[in-house]
Amino acid sequence: MEYKIADHIAAMKPSAIREIFKVLVDPEVIALSAGSPDPGSYPVKEMAEIGNDIFANNLVTTLQYGTTEGYGPLREQTKKRLREKYQTGTDADDLIITTGGQQTISLFTQTMINRGDVIVCEEPSFIGALNAFRSFGAQLKGVPMDEEGMRMDKLEEVLATTERVKFIYVIPTFQNPTGRTMTLERRKELLALAKKYDVLILEDNPYFELRYEGEPVATVKSMDTEGRVVYAGSYSKVLSPGMRIGFCLANKEIINRMVVCKQVSDVHTNMYFQMLVSKYLKKYDLDAHIKDICALHKIKRDAMLEGLAKYVDERIAFTHPNGGLFIWGELPESYDSFKLCQEITKKKVACVPGNAFATDESAVSNGFRMNFSMPSLDNIEIACRRIGETAAEFLK
Amino acid sequence: MEYKIADHIAAMKPSAIREIFKVLVDPEVIALSAGSPDPGSYPVKEMAEIGNDIFANNLVTTLQYGTTEGYGPLREQTKKRLREKYQTGTDADDLIITTGGQQTISLFTQTMINRGDVIVCEEPSFIGALNAFRSFGAQLKGVPMDEEGMRMDKLEEVLATTERVKFIYVIPTFQNPTGRTMTLERRKELLALAKKYDVLILEDNPYFELRYEGEPVATVKSMDTEGRVVYAGSYSKVLSPGMRIGFCLANKEIINRMVVCKQVSDVHTNMYFQMLVSKYLKKYDLDAHIKDICALHKIKRDAMLEGLAKYVDERIAFTHPNGGLFIWGELPESYDSFKLCQEITKKKVACVPGNAFATDESAVSNGFRMNFSMPSLDNIEIACRRIGETAAEFLK
Repeated sequence: MEYKIADHIAAMKPSAIREIFKVLVDPEVIALSAGSPDPGSYPVKEMAEIGNDIFANNLVTTLQYGTTEGYGPLREQTKKRLREKYQTGTDADDLIITTGGQQTISLFTQTMINRGDVIVCEEPSFIGALNAFRSFGAQLKGVPMDEEGMRMDKLEEVLATTERVKFIYVIPTFQNPTGRTMTLERRKELLALAKKYDVLILEDNPYFELRYEGEPVATVKSMDTEGRVVYAGSYSKVLSPGMRIGFCLANKEIINRMVVCKQVSDVHTNMYFQMLVSKYLKKYDLDAHIKDICALHKIKRDAMLEGLAKYVDERIAFTHPNGGLFIWGELPESYDSFKLCQEITKKKVACVPGNAFATDESAVSNGFRMNFSMPSLDNIEIACRRIGETAAEFLK
Repeated sequence: MEYKIADHIAAMKPSAIREIFKVLVDPEVIALSAGSPDPGSYPVKEMAEIGNDIFANNLVTTLQYGTTEGYGPLREQTKKRLREKYQTGTDADDLIITTGGQQTISLFTQTMINRGDVIVCEEPSFIGALNAFRSFGAQLKGVPMDEEGMRMDKLEEVLATTERVKFIYVIPTFQNPTGRTMTLERRKELLALAKKYDVLILEDNPYFELRYEGEPVATVKSMDTEGRVVYAGSYSKVLSPGMRIGFCLANKEIINRMVVCKQVSDVHTNMYFQMLVSKYLKKYDLDAHIKDICALHKIKRDAMLEGLAKYVDERIAFTHPNGGLFIWGELPESYDSFKLCQEITKKKVACVPGNAFATDESAVSNGFRMNFSMPSLDNIEIACRRIGETAAEFLK
């Protein structure tokens, strides 16, 4: 039979990048296409120990229905850590546990967006967020970036000329896909513009604790005095992504609405891993663990930056991320990175072409994303060499 | 600041039943308001054993990102079991793992519903589904039930006179909240009417394996030859709800769209419990376990039916469910069950008034729902006596 799919879901076309992802089934392919931390960074021993303890002492509790807002102790621990360590959150805010950072994006979008409302974002931006926005029928408006993050002159142009903007979506720290960090100055301007045009900000900050050099920059939310910033965080990058434990910190009124949406989305996040993270935070030193992860990832970032400098034509510009998981390459303006990535896959290396991260997927992009946390150091070297060889041919 | 919440989310008012749920913080209150199986029914020993095994041998895998569709072996095992044991599913169908049965309802609604589209359901129906429908801006049309389930004459009236119906939502077996089971004859008529008016059916069937007497009735999906039925199932009631492991079986085209929605909702369901259920199905006999659960729950159902017959005025009619978790009481027509439930809470027993399950929450209902799986046998007896005392006073 013929199905009458909802209009905005029907409009979401299978992405062209699927073709590139198809090569990943080949075990010989070096995947620079992932978005995960190095699995060697998971605190497996500690988690297994806590897991066994839960099984021995709290199993029935973790197997029952939990509250939609999340496990009480974990909510309190997360709030406290954000507040004390990052001056993020006020008494007017509340925090809920979500089924990973992605669910925060989805619930907030469902809470705010009427079909046709506009969401402004960095161009390029995280594909999972862009598709969440599309799945609720939002219109997307991209704002170009430079080395300091989203360009505020261009943002104001968009806000001044666009009706029905509901919120601005930013990944201010070690942005996905570019790896760039928005400067403090820009963050202040962002808040001022959001206030001037009376729109909200969704600050998606899953990578910010993976900093390998330089000084931390204050979260946008920490400078928010009026409940204008909704903060999405996650334990995926600092403990492990498969647990699906994220959180959202925002004004209580927004949180209350999001709880209604979460109730009908999945009732509650699995209790077991909420309890596991809570016990981990109580028993172990997360900050010390993060320091270890950062040391591990810094080596890989350095290896990739070095490999790219050594092997790749200097007409391709690469970002120098101070943290996170990604390096972004840019071909000279007239070139199509999708074609370059296709060529690279023939050499058994998978990068993600920039159009995957574009508000308009059919537009030509000269950028492409590479992940350095998942491949081994040897494979990073090999991948850079192959990218270099392909690029030399491609730029001829 | 003033938030501009999405119209259909803003329209979801905090329910009046919250007042009744507030009493649940008092540990002396006997809660007949839950929707969980008896926690004594969870196979805790077996789950702990498998859990320890996963920690010892597969922990890194379970902590990584998984595929959106779900853990391959669990998908295959679930498909096979439905097909071989219940003749449910065809080669044109596919199955995905969802974060509990609730997520199937939510993803399917997001996939199909444009704001203002109509969903037809039993009156009364499951509050979690009704709110999921509302959260995507659907209009609800309730169809009254009798002892044989949704009335087909009334369903046809609705279908013949209502524009933009996208699907019919039914809980055909041990319905929530009434405990009623739709007869085979009605199921066939339901399919025929869905075909005649070219609408889909969402068959929500989480309770069907909790049968305490009588013969199983074929699933609606098992009689579906054209991909018209979307089937929502769950391991919540037969293993445990806190894991958040449900599934959806439907035509591949619909499943593919739902995967896109799931990707942006929570990326994937937690790998750990997917693997745990898969290993449980491989190592243990789920059917034998279900037989044990049923024996346990039958004793409680019988105790409640007996207590209600013994203590409660016969002007209140009770359903006799052959399975599931709920008994439904009905006051004589002119009475308001919300007021009765308020009185009952004063005697420290919590029931759920019928308006919580109504498509129009502001309408007066004479029905109320009681759960028999969670309270102890002693508390079932005490609760029935208190309900009887309150009802005697109320009906004076």
